Amino acid sequence: MEIHNRVTKLFGIECPIIAGGMVWCSGWKLASAVSNAGGLGLIGAGSMTPEVLREHIVQCRDAVGGRPFGVNVPLMKPNVAEMMQVIAEERVPVVFTSAGSPKKWTSWLHERGIKVAHVVASSAFARKCEEAGVDAVVAEGFEAGGHNGKEETTTMCLIPAARKATSLPLIAAGGIASGEAMLAAHVLGAEGVQIGTLFALTQESGAHEAFKRRCLNLNEGDTKLLLRKLSPTRLVKGAFYDAIEEAENRGASAEELLEIIGIGKTKVGIFDGDIENGELEIGQVASLLKGNEIESVTTVIQRLMLEYEQALASLS
Amino acid sequence: MEIHNRVTKLFGIECPIIAGGMVWCSGWKLASAVSNAGGLGLIGAGSMTPEVLREHIVQCRDAVGGRPFGVNVPLMKPNVAEMMQVIAEERVPVVFTSAGSPKKWTSWLHERGIKVAHVVASSAFARKCEEAGVDAVVAEGFEAGGHNGKEETTTMCLIPAARKATSLPLIAAGGIASGEAMLAAHVLGAEGVQIGTLFALTQESGAHEAFKRRCLNLNEGDTKLLLRKLSPTRLVKGAFYDAIEEAENRGASAEELLEIIGIGKTKVGIFDGDIENGELEIGQVASLLKGNEIESVTTVIQRLMLEYEQALASLS
Repeated sequence: MEIHNRVTKLFGIECPIIAGGMVWCSGWKLASAVSNAGGLGLIGAGSMTPEVLREHIVQCRDAVGGRPFGVNVPLMKPNVAEMMQVIAEERVPVVFTSAGSPKKWTSWLHERGIKVAHVVASSAFARKCEEAGVDAVVAEGFEAGGHNGKEETTTMCLIPAARKATSLPLIAAGGIASGEAMLAAHVLGAEGVQIGTLFALTQESGAHEAFKRRCLNLNEGDTKLLLRKLSPTRLVKGAFYDAIEEAENRGASAEELLEIIGIGKTKVGIFDGDIENGELEIGQVASLLKGNEIESVTTVIQRLMLEYEQALASLS
Repeated sequence: MEIHNRVTKLFGIECPIIAGGMVWCSGWKLASAVSNAGGLGLIGAGSMTPEVLREHIVQCRDAVGGRPFGVNVPLMKPNVAEMMQVIAEERVPVVFTSAGSPKKWTSWLHERGIKVAHVVASSAFARKCEEAGVDAVVAEGFEAGGHNGKEETTTMCLIPAARKATSLPLIAAGGIASGEAMLAAHVLGAEGVQIGTLFALTQESGAHEAFKRRCLNLNEGDTKLLLRKLSPTRLVKGAFYDAIEEAENRGASAEELLEIIGIGKTKVGIFDGDIENGELEIGQVASLLKGNEIESVTTVIQRLMLEYEQALASLS
């Protein structure tokens, strides 16, 4: 089954499925596998130096043989300008920006022929995307793993709000790990989905196997949004989580929390696989995957499209 | 348009729309209006004495002329046994129980010919409902107003989980205020919806006009889940909210929070209309209704069904 809409047309893809650019997960292997399976793979620049990013772009381009792929750039990183330089030099066709203003880089990227999508967590920012001239908006709900919006708006409430706020192609993110959820997102007004959790736990993801196994064994309530005094972040329970929760319960300040977090803890958790002391970020939807195997990207995308098709057929 | 499925058949209704039994909102006027418009209206016993509940039941029965209606009973209330006695004596056809174990009252109600649905916030409790023999399960997501589950699972993630956990007729709640959201919930596995926010803000709702107007003027992020140390509750921003948030930020204990809350504050906020000092409970989806008029129940239900029909038609 192929789906034709503004999102597939914009990116030149067959399935309106984007793999979110996730720290330590989204290297060239994951990104190229998703693009080769008909979706849009994103390299996650958030955990890379500009040099490492360049390597991943080169490898990804080699692996996709002319298919589109992209890079996700969190705009709060200190070396964004260098990242963007690498992206332009390597002629990456698509950039997803997040965690910042869509006004900052959109024109610069457009001048270089690069398509731009921006990730938002509120309809106010969706409106700003339209003003900034981005090509598509990703609206990411409270369910999503990792960094999250201050409004805590869930996908169910956010997608219709973003749909009202902008006429741009709209991509839903947060809580989507099945073809049924893809169709639900479509019914709510989205033309595509950005999926993180499901792809973070595939064979091609750069995450450590211990991280993947932990995330495929979560119960409901085993991820929670913490760190509201810094930047709201959905974390998986474990020793790292417990230390933060305990500090927050006794009213710890932002400074104290920063000290507890320390530096490089997502690497410790997600890449090195220390699931107790590292920072583990995954979406709430992981509990729906409990007991799944670590599958290939192709298996995942084929299942998503089959489920979507069956869900659609069951309505008529 | 009529919808025929297990939920409409179970309750003998035309539209699989249940109006949640909300404190200070869900008196006989709201419940009967919903039932007369083809849905299932629930009287909210949570803010009533047994005597007041009896009055509302009698009035509702008079108003619906043989149509089904129900009562929602939060099981943590001290006078549940008296409430149930009144319900049985007055031959109420349907009871929705919440905030407690579905095992406690289900057989007792069944022996008296009363249908039972139970409200849950997790798939574990959905499973318990099946064991307890209830007739239908309401799965209510994090988006919902008022009291909420500890897991913070959103509707998008909860409905598929509950669908897996039980074969019972499943009703989705939380974040549903449009026909599109009804269809999305259906796609995710629900056969009906329980709607709170939208009905709390109708003409027939018992809430004060100031409460309704405040809730029809909320931005994204203007409701938040607080009181995690007591019982997680979604509240609307205002002086009452601020006092709790400030206390939580400095690490206040459950005892301190109880003192700040005081007694009878939902009455002050929702019934008396003191939107600053009272406790205001509404769903996150209220921000999608910003700028709406205070409408009649008939208008709301007709629009829901029309939107549902149009959303369904647009898929084929």
